[in-house]
Amino acid sequence: MRKKIKIINAAILIIGNEILSGRTQDKNIAFICSWLNLRCGISVKEVRVIPDQEKIIIDNVLHLSKKFKYVFTTGGIGPTHDDITAQSISKAFKLKYEYHKEAYRILEKYYGKKKFNDGRKKMSKMPRGAKLIYNPSSAAPGFMTKNVLSLPGVPSILNSMIENCKRYLVKGKKIYSKTVNLYTVESNISKQLGLIQKKYKKYVDIGSYPFFRLGKIGVSVVTRSSSIAKLKRVNLDLMKLIKLKKIKILKT
Amino acid sequence: MRKKIKIINAAILIIGNEILSGRTQDKNIAFICSWLNLRCGISVKEVRVIPDQEKIIIDNVLHLSKKFKYVFTTGGIGPTHDDITAQSISKAFKLKYEYHKEAYRILEKYYGKKKFNDGRKKMSKMPRGAKLIYNPSSAAPGFMTKNVLSLPGVPSILNSMIENCKRYLVKGKKIYSKTVNLYTVESNISKQLGLIQKKYKKYVDIGSYPFFRLGKIGVSVVTRSSSIAKLKRVNLDLMKLIKLKKIKILKT
Repeated sequence: MRKKIKIINAAILIIGNEILSGRTQDKNIAFICSWLNLRCGISVKEVRVIPDQEKIIIDNVLHLSKKFKYVFTTGGIGPTHDDITAQSISKAFKLKYEYHKEAYRILEKYYGKKKFNDGRKKMSKMPRGAKLIYNPSSAAPGFMTKNVLSLPGVPSILNSMIENCKRYLVKGKKIYSKTVNLYTVESNISKQLGLIQKKYKKYVDIGSYPFFRLGKIGVSVVTRSSSIAKLKRVNLDLMKLIKLKKIKILKT
Repeated sequence: MRKKIKIINAAILIIGNEILSGRTQDKNIAFICSWLNLRCGISVKEVRVIPDQEKIIIDNVLHLSKKFKYVFTTGGIGPTHDDITAQSISKAFKLKYEYHKEAYRILEKYYGKKKFNDGRKKMSKMPRGAKLIYNPSSAAPGFMTKNVLSLPGVPSILNSMIENCKRYLVKGKKIYSKTVNLYTVESNISKQLGLIQKKYKKYVDIGSYPFFRLGKIGVSVVTRSSSIAKLKRVNLDLMKLIKLKKIKILKT
């Protein structure tokens, strides 16, 4: 009997006025989505970007944590007044917002007793019972509360910590994908592509994305499935279409 | 008597599996947020990224269009089977999904009668009564339905069209901002920064964002306000703090 593995989903909640003002180009969405997909077999099904406002953070954390298996928050866990993620999550789940003993020790050791000021101490305040997500680059840990994992907003620090989330995650089915880059336009293949998608709609997702490269236009056709065999089958159909239409493939 | 100008808000709805899979790094959020802020005085208050699924698109369009003055959607208006934004918005607002006469003429002229196939024709199907957002780079127009403006997902095309949204938007108060880059760490200034924020909390938003540049770490302090005078005042307080702490400013 084959073991049935459920598709595991997640949401990302980006907390930060700097993204909404357009000042900062987000890089965390693509990174987290790829990492969850490739390393954990977890599919991100929704992302939200919201301002640093307590009530909005609370509402979104509660909504998303009910709807998805995991929620990843980014931003708002530093030492300044606009870092309110930890206290907002505490309120959301009606948990005490307090010093986490281990986090306090880690930060005290990192900064030294003399330089361990209030701002730095604040970074060890978390919802009661939070599990730590260790931070190899700048010490201040992220934390997991119920099914919500809170990470910092700075991409390089977040990237250095992500592997430390793994211990808390149940793994799902890996999604495989294949991309074929074609020198054609979408409207040249849209009808046939639609028919292929219909034929395999239960097992394979087909996406089509225009690109521009060195002055030439083209289409990337991306097929995604949790079954390698099904992915191969749909790609055979796709190759037939490409031959029939005499479309050139861009080799990368 | 001074004319009272209301703060005008907006949301962005990014429709696309390619963003959620991590395959594509989104560039539209920062671009639209900046453009709305600088050119129209409109503040984006929420962004959502969702998959190409009709029911999810309908639910989100209805929710966000009720909650915000404007909603900008990106993606899903091309010729392929996974482009379902126009039909989903039609369903959301119970409007007929039909050929838009002017859009049909524009596309027929662009492609020529012979090459105007079904895929291309599909790009002129929209919710009844939609207003066109002209597309100078690849002809296929975006469209506005009630307070929802639908744009393509390809950043270069979206960028070329954005000015054509302006005629449909009521302008709001411009938000001014000033950034000071400091060679310090957040926890060195977090306490005083919190006090300054408290003093000006009605008029000015202060954000603090760590950066890494040429091996040095620093903090960008960003102040934002709709009043230039208030912005100057808060920045005087900020300069006092910088002097007191003997912090070096990074000149850019």
